[in-house]
Amino acid sequence: MAHDGVVEAIQTLSNQGTSGDAVETLIKTVEDYPFYKSVGFGGLPNAEGILEMDAAYMEGDTFQIGAVAGITDVKNPISVARKLSQDKFNSFRVGDGASKYAMLEGFERKNMLTKRAHRIWEKRLKEIHENNLNPYDGHDTVGAITLDKQGSMTAGTSSSGLFMKKPGRVGDSPLSGSGFYVDSEIGGAAATGLGEDLMKGCLSYEIVRLMGEGLTPQQACDQAVYSFHDKLTKRYGKCGAFSLVAMNNQGQWGVATNVEFTFSVGNHLETPQIFIANMGDNHTTNIQPITQEWLDAYEKRIKAPID
Amino acid sequence: MAHDGVVEAIQTLSNQGTSGDAVETLIKTVEDYPFYKSVGFGGLPNAEGILEMDAAYMEGDTFQIGAVAGITDVKNPISVARKLSQDKFNSFRVGDGASKYAMLEGFERKNMLTKRAHRIWEKRLKEIHENNLNPYDGHDTVGAITLDKQGSMTAGTSSSGLFMKKPGRVGDSPLSGSGFYVDSEIGGAAATGLGEDLMKGCLSYEIVRLMGEGLTPQQACDQAVYSFHDKLTKRYGKCGAFSLVAMNNQGQWGVATNVEFTFSVGNHLETPQIFIANMGDNHTTNIQPITQEWLDAYEKRIKAPID
Repeated sequence: MAHDGVVEAIQTLSNQGTSGDAVETLIKTVEDYPFYKSVGFGGLPNAEGILEMDAAYMEGDTFQIGAVAGITDVKNPISVARKLSQDKFNSFRVGDGASKYAMLEGFERKNMLTKRAHRIWEKRLKEIHENNLNPYDGHDTVGAITLDKQGSMTAGTSSSGLFMKKPGRVGDSPLSGSGFYVDSEIGGAAATGLGEDLMKGCLSYEIVRLMGEGLTPQQACDQAVYSFHDKLTKRYGKCGAFSLVAMNNQGQWGVATNVEFTFSVGNHLETPQIFIANMGDNHTTNIQPITQEWLDAYEKRIKAPID
Repeated sequence: MAHDGVVEAIQTLSNQGTSGDAVETLIKTVEDYPFYKSVGFGGLPNAEGILEMDAAYMEGDTFQIGAVAGITDVKNPISVARKLSQDKFNSFRVGDGASKYAMLEGFERKNMLTKRAHRIWEKRLKEIHENNLNPYDGHDTVGAITLDKQGSMTAGTSSSGLFMKKPGRVGDSPLSGSGFYVDSEIGGAAATGLGEDLMKGCLSYEIVRLMGEGLTPQQACDQAVYSFHDKLTKRYGKCGAFSLVAMNNQGQWGVATNVEFTFSVGNHLETPQIFIANMGDNHTTNIQPITQEWLDAYEKRIKAPID
């Protein structure tokens, strides 16, 4: 999902853009693409048919954070979050207050609900009604960590949240420490998965902290994610999907996940690459490059006609 | 502020109430009292004159979290948060979606804006206009950690947020890891202060983590709060008010703060007591019982006529 954004972000960095510019570019690319059902334009609406979006932006040099939750009708929630991060007060805005802020500040307004997303919603509503299904599935935040030539790091997230969520439901994406965290002197992390469970563990903060203790990003992801997966399963009886990515201030990266998870990595030296990760044995992660076959099937799936 | 609630909570625990019952009782007592300007009934409204409230509830046995932000016209936001904590999905609700949930679930609705709070708001608006003042001051969340005879722990927070906040502004109070965190096998922590800065440090999570490594609550508070105070001052150039309280699963407590801060502690053996804390030298905290004189002056101040 983030791959085209990663390509754009590397271009931004090559043109002397900051890590903040790179995160914003990356996430805007994902928000603007109509075939991703869980971020920005084309995202799936809540149980009442309204597309509510969450986003956050954090500067690793200063710890400044901007975030929005339950914002509607704005083209790029990540840009609103970035602007809010410059404010000392009122830097996390939710609901109508967030939408009003975006409007007053002149951010581009847009009907973000596509016909395709509306049709998927209608169809799902019918299925839930007819088959008495659990309405919740589909949560796939874009989360990104960037590092620029000056050594500054930035983290960002954007999501339309859980498909069929109740109005005003907020997941981990705009929550510092859970959805994202970054410290330019150490590194950053970002999450996707079931926000209700991710916020029980503050895993993005924990991964950054472990990298600060000297662990590699991969060691930090493995240790934080799988030990909390085990702890939550024991104490709560279940554990939702967790997928975390991390990068340290040397550009080394890591990932850990309890479900199949794809992600993209790139820098100025190599062509960005997409990988697929799965939970391995003994708190490790299996990571492999995706095949062209996988990519073709993915593209076909996300663009498949909705009957 | 929390003292009358602490007295009530101890009563609840003595009557076989759980730590969850105790936190809810404690915080409801604070929410219901009309002379606290920063929590529940009598809380000060936002810049548009609307009283928006935030609250959270976390179970230390299971890590279940319920939270609301920007909720309006509900008598006890903490009770709404507690109810939400029972849900696997949609357990954090904001804005109109949160208020609608409370209404649908039958929580008591109430106009929470008192005449006194409205008068303070009007007066402040005039002062800001006439003297070109920074509009923001007054943030005093009630945060509480409880421990019951079964060894279960619960954390809770409730706040009307920053006085004169912009509509939809959310602070740290409903954010896991920043405003609160609890693990019954270790302990819990809760925060008050400038939410925008507290969420930069995830201090409640960090304090619980440090207690898990064997630090006493006081050591954990001192280490987490003052080291992040220093780090933020260096990296961001400034640091808002931070006041954190913590208790471990043995009932030992600690506090750290970079501003004068009062708090209340009690158990079944001793009469609950109010203390005043200030930042000491070399990352320590000075803690003293308050005097009757201090208490009389406080009561006079919060009940002073508004001209």
